[in-house]
Amino acid sequence: MAVGALILIYAGVVVRSILRLPQGGKKAEEVADAIRQGANAYLIRQSKTLAPFVIVLAVLIGLFTGAATGVAFVAGVVCSALAGFFGMLVSVRSNSRTAKAAEEGLAQALGVAVKGGSVTGLALVGLGLLGIGAIYYLTSSVAVLVGFGFGASLISLFARVGGGIYTKAADVGADLVGKIEKGIPEDDPRNPAVIADNVGDNVGDCAGMAADLFESYVVTIIAAMLLGAAMGPQFVTLPLLVGIIGAIASVLGLYAIRLGKSHNIMNALYKGVAATCIIAAVGFSLISFDAYVTAALLVGVVATGLMFKITEYYTSKEFPPVKEVAKAAQTGAGTNLIAGLAVGMQSTALPVLVIIGAIIASFAAASAAGIPGVYGIAIAAVAMLSLTGIVITLDAYGPITDNAGGIAEMSGAPSRVRKITDELDSVGNTTKATTKGFAIAGAALGALALFAAFAEETGLQTINILDPRVTVGLFIGGLLPFLFSSFLMKAVGKAAFDIVEEVRRQFRTNKGIMSGKTKPDYARVVDISTQAALKELLVPGALAVLSPLAVGLLLGPAALGGLLAGAIVSGFLLALFMSTSGAAWDNAKKYVEDGNFGGKGSDTHKAAVVGDTVGDPFKDTAGPSLNALIKVLNTVSLVFAAFIVANALKII
Amino acid sequence: MAVGALILIYAGVVVRSILRLPQGGKKAEEVADAIRQGANAYLIRQSKTLAPFVIVLAVLIGLFTGAATGVAFVAGVVCSALAGFFGMLVSVRSNSRTAKAAEEGLAQALGVAVKGGSVTGLALVGLGLLGIGAIYYLTSSVAVLVGFGFGASLISLFARVGGGIYTKAADVGADLVGKIEKGIPEDDPRNPAVIADNVGDNVGDCAGMAADLFESYVVTIIAAMLLGAAMGPQFVTLPLLVGIIGAIASVLGLYAIRLGKSHNIMNALYKGVAATCIIAAVGFSLISFDAYVTAALLVGVVATGLMFKITEYYTSKEFPPVKEVAKAAQTGAGTNLIAGLAVGMQSTALPVLVIIGAIIASFAAASAAGIPGVYGIAIAAVAMLSLTGIVITLDAYGPITDNAGGIAEMSGAPSRVRKITDELDSVGNTTKATTKGFAIAGAALGALALFAAFAEETGLQTINILDPRVTVGLFIGGLLPFLFSSFLMKAVGKAAFDIVEEVRRQFRTNKGIMSGKTKPDYARVVDISTQAALKELLVPGALAVLSPLAVGLLLGPAALGGLLAGAIVSGFLLALFMSTSGAAWDNAKKYVEDGNFGGKGSDTHKAAVVGDTVGDPFKDTAGPSLNALIKVLNTVSLVFAAFIVANALKII
Repeated sequence: MAVGALILIYAGVVVRSILRLPQGGKKAEEVADAIRQGANAYLIRQSKTLAPFVIVLAVLIGLFTGAATGVAFVAGVVCSALAGFFGMLVSVRSNSRTAKAAEEGLAQALGVAVKGGSVTGLALVGLGLLGIGAIYYLTSSVAVLVGFGFGASLISLFARVGGGIYTKAADVGADLVGKIEKGIPEDDPRNPAVIADNVGDNVGDCAGMAADLFESYVVTIIAAMLLGAAMGPQFVTLPLLVGIIGAIASVLGLYAIRLGKSHNIMNALYKGVAATCIIAAVGFSLISFDAYVTAALLVGVVATGLMFKITEYYTSKEFPPVKEVAKAAQTGAGTNLIAGLAVGMQSTALPVLVIIGAIIASFAAASAAGIPGVYGIAIAAVAMLSLTGIVITLDAYGPITDNAGGIAEMSGAPSRVRKITDELDSVGNTTKATTKGFAIAGAALGALALFAAFAEETGLQTINILDPRVTVGLFIGGLLPFLFSSFLMKAVGKAAFDIVEEVRRQFRTNKGIMSGKTKPDYARVVDISTQAALKELLVPGALAVLSPLAVGLLLGPAALGGLLAGAIVSGFLLALFMSTSGAAWDNAKKYVEDGNFGGKGSDTHKAAVVGDTVGDPFKDTAGPSLNALIKVLNTVSLVFAAFIVANALKII
Repeated sequence: MAVGALILIYAGVVVRSILRLPQGGKKAEEVADAIRQGANAYLIRQSKTLAPFVIVLAVLIGLFTGAATGVAFVAGVVCSALAGFFGMLVSVRSNSRTAKAAEEGLAQALGVAVKGGSVTGLALVGLGLLGIGAIYYLTSSVAVLVGFGFGASLISLFARVGGGIYTKAADVGADLVGKIEKGIPEDDPRNPAVIADNVGDNVGDCAGMAADLFESYVVTIIAAMLLGAAMGPQFVTLPLLVGIIGAIASVLGLYAIRLGKSHNIMNALYKGVAATCIIAAVGFSLISFDAYVTAALLVGVVATGLMFKITEYYTSKEFPPVKEVAKAAQTGAGTNLIAGLAVGMQSTALPVLVIIGAIIASFAAASAAGIPGVYGIAIAAVAMLSLTGIVITLDAYGPITDNAGGIAEMSGAPSRVRKITDELDSVGNTTKATTKGFAIAGAALGALALFAAFAEETGLQTINILDPRVTVGLFIGGLLPFLFSSFLMKAVGKAAFDIVEEVRRQFRTNKGIMSGKTKPDYARVVDISTQAALKELLVPGALAVLSPLAVGLLLGPAALGGLLAGAIVSGFLLALFMSTSGAAWDNAKKYVEDGNFGGKGSDTHKAAVVGDTVGDPFKDTAGPSLNALIKVLNTVSLVFAAFIVANALKII
């Protein structure tokens, strides 16, 4: 609790230092204001939409599992929302300051962007530790903590889904009319959808990712505590201690982010990650009471490093996969798409090996230490997610630099400044992709820990695949990620269509926009995006919350166990496939824009743009939402475990 | 055995009646000859490539599981290859006769095409019953039959993979240069890839599909016999009797295919399916010894009907999904692709409900009859696959009419004739899609029966998902379909690239081709396609055969059980997703070509063509190959079950 509070105070200090920085000229400020207002409007509307849903669920949880759990649920909702809100508030204030700092040089601009990003990371970790610490201190009950975790889950689902729909509908809408039909550049102030697009970066990449990782962070710690509760008090506190070490390591790691002589931004950021990993590893060995337990914790750190490298290999334009996708664009959009889909499918292999390697190694280490193997898996997951602070910093850096680029472009900054913001933004694209790999692997390991906790809570000793109920559960669980993704892809398509219509209407009815004489009606597009995102959010949300309850109550807890296992496997694979394909298309397009295979404006480029368009909802809407889905399925099952065991109908 | 032999004799009679029909003019005959030679060359080369592989495996099986099983394995290989070969021989002779019959009218042409298609169906069913009957008669050992099933599996894998790569590489290559770069129509004789494209229809859709369903057919019967062996002799013969009933019903059903007054071809074909279903249902109730057993059998028949209807809904241009995909093409290739991917993902839901409904209903029915529930699931699968004869007729009808259209076009037949072949071909596209739904569901149910037989053979009472070995198995199993698909997609891309280069070279170096003065070098393109398909076949083949052995030996039979379950679920979902997306794009393009949203040549049409190109390897290479993959994984595990149990290292 104290560490959580201290981190939040530290975050406050960072925020003050950011707010003191200069903001750039009046024009830049205008743009930043518009983005800020749009982002706030979205978050407020989202909160209002979800409030009744949250209240009903809180009452249900209170009735079926106790009032304390219901209250903890609301606390989880509030903390998760605050983590995203807080991060975004700072993010939308750091963007113009980064653009301003770019006037002084790359190092200065990088410093501001990293500082801004770190606030999201710090807020998330601080709120997580504070929330878990406070509830555990007050109730000494891990069961109540599960309510807190479910609250975090629910918000992460809605933030990922809503934010993902918002950001891509706006992005696709802006590109289809602006870039393709009107031939104006990205972030051109004449595009009526440009502000919505920039808002989308914040609500999707910043608030959505923050809520996602906040959830993984807290639910994994809680699951490990729950598994440890049957083993003794030191096993309950260990996950919390690991979380604290990771948080401290993340704060210290921030100071290691320094631009070297080579001016390589990516390396500067990686220095921070590497320092955090080393500090955390040392810290873990200090707090651990057994060399084998330390080994299990180190598994999580190693898995983090591997996921970063693997994701970078498949999504960075430095390596063969992206180059091959770009090369395939030479024979048209069709072959570009086939190549990207193939890369995405292939990219699932190494992460699966990392996950199964982590499962086997941490299980074996725990068994060697004489403790249950599943606990080993759970603390390896906690160790991995304890690094969330630094990871989220890198991720939140993305929308800040993206927006900074947009603000520089829209406020007509000199080309020297724009070159710096472009450089920062290009690295932001890579970090957005690599942190996604971490988030997916973290979600899978976290979900596995939750799954083990679910079995513990329901008293299931075996979940036997040969039992047809479990087989049925496996099929339903495997299906959910596909069905969920299809809803989200359709939602983006529909919302983008509405935005295209509106942007076309504005260009048509107001000729002054294209000539730059009148300002377009940005707010109208922001409004359409907001409405669309919130409207499309409820069906997938209901699907995620109700299907485990339905299967559990109709077919029993073992079938529900099958569902959870099926969803974890299928969701993990599909999330990797979609995220990697999307990022590979995105960077293949950028690789062509760098002057390869004909460069910008060539037929190859046009083909690559099609891939990028398809990749947008893949990598930024459906893919990341699956993380939230597999965790929500597990937390809802965990919260209602006792209720399901007591009331299952078991129709076969 | 006798029934199998009788059906083969009947097939011979049908063949004679086809060969007596007139073939059309000299020009049509030339084209048909070229297709025939290409198809034969491919099958012969494929057999030669696979021979060493088969011999090595036969020796290994003989050593580890007994000489009789090794011999049965070779018999399975030979029967499966013969089924495909026989069907294709007739198919490539029926195409020109269908084109000729089209001169007389629609009903006549339909009659020839259905007759031609029925030979594949009859050959398959006849060889299956004959092979199983003969081996069981000679050895009275179900264990030896498993070797036969594995032989069929292996060929189906290679036929699906090799045929799938061949057909789509040729198709994509022909379209990219012919249609898009040169602007010449489909099946234009000036296109050097046109013969390879038509050969591909035969080796992919006809021989590939025949091997796939032959495998599902025999392995499901064998798995049910194996499960029945522990229960008593009547349970061993029941699956065989069900197979016989289905075969007879299919033959009788063929006579119900009649063009009504409305001249609706699809309805004519459906009459045959409906008649077969009704006759089979009556037959099942006559041979069954228990009302509940009859109910389990009827589950298979109902599932067949539902799969046809569901697949048709998602892939026919009469229904909303395809229309929506076509509509999305109005805003470009990107939105067309997003819509198609979303439809594909959504289309997995209802088939999953059919499968789980079938599992629950047949399990409950068997339990009510006082016999093990898994046996109920197995005989429901057998009942479904007993209808293979009629289903394959509809499927093999596809390449015959497609080729007939090509021959009519290339031989310059009058437009009246081409209109008829086009009409037949358009229905062929639908039947190709709907039979795929049946094949996927049949593969999934068949694989589930094999999975149960695997548990029986290994003596596993439980396969516990909470055991981390099983969890690891689930992840690996879930991964395999993704990895396998990525290999195939890449293989198509590479092979298509080679063909594009060759076609471009021919157009460049020989100016006479475009003006129609000289004939292009068809054989060279056929050769490239053949080589590419066979070269790319070995890695995925090895992956499918070796991964279950590796997991079983390293982590034990329970982990292998996890792998099989993971692969069935993930393979089933991915196969549905890819097949439906592909068919939806294909028919969305056709819907636009019918004059909707701007019609042929419009920007919408161009966007729809991109979707179709991406869909080709989805629906005709990767998607269908997954059927073979999930069955091979199960048959190889079943064949080596005892060996794995005895020699597993169990490293954790």
